[in-house]
Amino acid sequence: MNLNRKAFVRALGVLMMVMGATMLLPLAVSILYGEGKVALAFAGTIIPVSAFGFLLYYVVVPGHTSLTARDGYLTVSICWILASFISAIPFVLSGAVSNIFDAFFECSSSLTTTGATSIADVESLPHGILFWRAFTNWLGGMGILIFAAAVLPSLGIGANILAATEAPGPTMDKITPKISDTAKNLYKIYTIFTVSEIILLMAAGMDLFDASTHTFGSVGTGGFSNYNNSIAHFNSMPIEMIITAYMLLSGVNLNLYFYSFKRRGGIRNLLADEEFKWYIIIIATVSGLISLNLWLTHTYENWGQSFRFSIFQTVSILTTTGSVSANYDLWPTFSKMLIFTLMFIGGCSASTAGGLKVIRFLVVFKLIKRSIQVRLHPNAIISIKINDKNLSIDTVSEITSLMFLHILVVTGATLLISINGYDMVTNLSAVLTCIGNIGPGFNLVGPALNFSIFSNTDKLLLSFVMLAGRLELYAFIVLFLPRFWQQNK
Amino acid sequence: MNLNRKAFVRALGVLMMVMGATMLLPLAVSILYGEGKVALAFAGTIIPVSAFGFLLYYVVVPGHTSLTARDGYLTVSICWILASFISAIPFVLSGAVSNIFDAFFECSSSLTTTGATSIADVESLPHGILFWRAFTNWLGGMGILIFAAAVLPSLGIGANILAATEAPGPTMDKITPKISDTAKNLYKIYTIFTVSEIILLMAAGMDLFDASTHTFGSVGTGGFSNYNNSIAHFNSMPIEMIITAYMLLSGVNLNLYFYSFKRRGGIRNLLADEEFKWYIIIIATVSGLISLNLWLTHTYENWGQSFRFSIFQTVSILTTTGSVSANYDLWPTFSKMLIFTLMFIGGCSASTAGGLKVIRFLVVFKLIKRSIQVRLHPNAIISIKINDKNLSIDTVSEITSLMFLHILVVTGATLLISINGYDMVTNLSAVLTCIGNIGPGFNLVGPALNFSIFSNTDKLLLSFVMLAGRLELYAFIVLFLPRFWQQNK
Ligand SMILES: [K+]
Ligand SMILES: [K+]
Repeated sequence: MNLNRKAFVRALGVLMMVMGATMLLPLAVSILYGEGKVALAFAGTIIPVSAFGFLLYYVVVPGHTSLTARDGYLTVSICWILASFISAIPFVLSGAVSNIFDAFFECSSSLTTTGATSIADVESLPHGILFWRAFTNWLGGMGILIFAAAVLPSLGIGANILAATEAPGPTMDKITPKISDTAKNLYKIYTIFTVSEIILLMAAGMDLFDASTHTFGSVGTGGFSNYNNSIAHFNSMPIEMIITAYMLLSGVNLNLYFYSFKRRGGIRNLLADEEFKWYIIIIATVSGLISLNLWLTHTYENWGQSFRFSIFQTVSILTTTGSVSANYDLWPTFSKMLIFTLMFIGGCSASTAGGLKVIRFLVVFKLIKRSIQVRLHPNAIISIKINDKNLSIDTVSEITSLMFLHILVVTGATLLISINGYDMVTNLSAVLTCIGNIGPGFNLVGPALNFSIFSNTDKLLLSFVMLAGRLELYAFIVLFLPRFWQQNK
Repeated sequence: MNLNRKAFVRALGVLMMVMGATMLLPLAVSILYGEGKVALAFAGTIIPVSAFGFLLYYVVVPGHTSLTARDGYLTVSICWILASFISAIPFVLSGAVSNIFDAFFECSSSLTTTGATSIADVESLPHGILFWRAFTNWLGGMGILIFAAAVLPSLGIGANILAATEAPGPTMDKITPKISDTAKNLYKIYTIFTVSEIILLMAAGMDLFDASTHTFGSVGTGGFSNYNNSIAHFNSMPIEMIITAYMLLSGVNLNLYFYSFKRRGGIRNLLADEEFKWYIIIIATVSGLISLNLWLTHTYENWGQSFRFSIFQTVSILTTTGSVSANYDLWPTFSKMLIFTLMFIGGCSASTAGGLKVIRFLVVFKLIKRSIQVRLHPNAIISIKINDKNLSIDTVSEITSLMFLHILVVTGATLLISINGYDMVTNLSAVLTCIGNIGPGFNLVGPALNFSIFSNTDKLLLSFVMLAGRLELYAFIVLFLPRFWQQNK
């Protein structure tokens, strides 16, 4: 179980070179907007980071390439932490953010596609930084697709339940023989979504800058906006409709699009997928109930307005985008409880969405259903099926264990952060919105507020919670176990 | 699957006769305190209820006695509902409570050992009613012991994880060959606890009436008090210490006492039981952390006071007694979050405590631990053991399914009750404290307040939540499934 140090170091080298390359785009934006100090900050980050990455990659001779699960977890976790740290450098160098904890929080929030901000007034930030902030949201979405499509299966781990051979739904290997091809297909869809949304948002009246940043936020389900009031800033039905559509599209298993449209049947294949079907049912039911509640309580003047804000917020929270078109913290309790419930669920597997994912809840519902049937008919043997395929006991056990671990991490993190003395709803919802990579919570971290209230240690804790949630807990949590490090020779 | 109607009707008959007989005690108390109207109310309940029960039992000819699981669930659930309804009659007849929903809420709260009250000023109630309220708390505790020790195993159902043959810990059949003997042993302990606590509380200064009612509340882990301020009314260290000790003793698996002290080893056998060990560890850790938090935040004047209130409240909430010696809703958030977390756990299996029970959390922790080990060593095969015995996959699956069903019922009930518009913490904690049979919650249902704020429909919903929680969900939940009734011919 000796750690494969060479492969680890080379992975960090690649990451640093990639980070350096991606920063050329915000560098260009800063120059375009004449923000000299910001441009210098990016240049001053790109050069040393790329050079150091180049050294690590080319000086270290490649060793044997097979990684153990342990090496894989360590590499993935350290890469995400390092990427957050590197992304934070221009924030500090440019003087946009003075506190390194704020910068690190902002960047782990961005790369994990959480989209929670600790900057009280984002509108005061320079364009280069705002662009970088949105672009890392988009990069993070792509990063999680790599993680789900390539990293986890190559480690032979079924943390992504779609990667295991006995897994439900369209597995990766069904579509293309190679994992790298699957990854390419995912990026293709991701790019198509990005380009088309930018065009549509510009058609709806946004300039190229706003259209780009808000597209990065919605297709990556990150939800960062360059306005303090998020999407509510525009107060535009067409913009809300476009963003709702793209959040909804991005919350779907991206493989499913290929799987469905490369075979006969097209959209019927899509609807035949159980996870997709329940994703749509949840959105329809919850947005319907919230609309009704908002309408009956006269929260908005008519049914149309109620539905407008309800559908946007339902899709935004379920897909874990966290964009805001209305302050849901002012809604009646019934609607707030529905939003709170959505925070646990999240989007579909193999999407950029966070949360526990619809498919896991589907499995749990089937478990509950089975347990009731078994009690009424003690001799019945009922298997758990998804898309007409039996799930193995191991797969079911992985899913239930992950959900319990999720509850444990939420409980532990909420207890720790509660030392700050803020009310229970603020602290619990802050942890929930971070572990689910959503963005806004309730009360002091409600949709109209931000995470600037927290201390540096709280921000660091929440950054870790975001990273843990993004990496489906295990990859990150194991780093905190003494057992993990004891085995290192 | 035809319902065995005769056995069902005869069970109701027995219940009514028992209820009539137990009401002789509060009848005597009313006469003793010269409360004529209350005495009449009890007499006016006892006569028709007993007579009707007698008729049902002796007129219906016994059929075959083997009950199906379905018959069993129906019988148990209807018995608890009927018992709550019968208990409520004297409340209304005596004029103590005018609203039938209040009376039903009070009695299901009492019989399920929840101890939540919807009566704003309990001190204004007559002695006969106060006694009956406390006595039903005690009866409910005994009722749940019958349910756990006799009813569930006779149905061949492992809802009580101690009843199944592959179950962890000291199983029933190890101690005594017959279930009825086990039940007798449980009542013996229950009676010893009751008599000794009454004597100790009188020694600490209570009169016989207060000592009896508060003993009924603590050994049954119901927590009803005849004072609005619960135990805080006495402001007495010795009384708090006695009640803490008895709550703690009553939260333990009562079989374990027999099992431990009938064999060589005595107290060492007790400590060797994993559930007992973790029950003590939880109490020690949580009360220690709360004391520290209360002390460091200067909530109380010194360490001694901090510990005094912390240990009482920790034991009271973990054992789901819900007695109050200090308003924990005014404590700092860290302590409140710990109390909130305890609300999920509950006491040990085969005790009078509610909640999900320590042993189920123990199994879940072991599941999480295993899932981490499997990820680090993908080929490892690790079984889940309790007290050195392997748990079968079915037992583990029953436990995980019950916990998910618990979460589902809490979510559903909280959403339904949230239509009332009270804040999220009030509604969520009301549901949690009812399903866990605890008593007090947070905010508007905090320890210094009561459930009188709720509407009749809310009270009915919460009464059902208490019953569902008390019967470990399945027995009660199945009644609400159309499937359950479709099979009835
Ligand atoms: K987000
Ligand atoms: K209670």
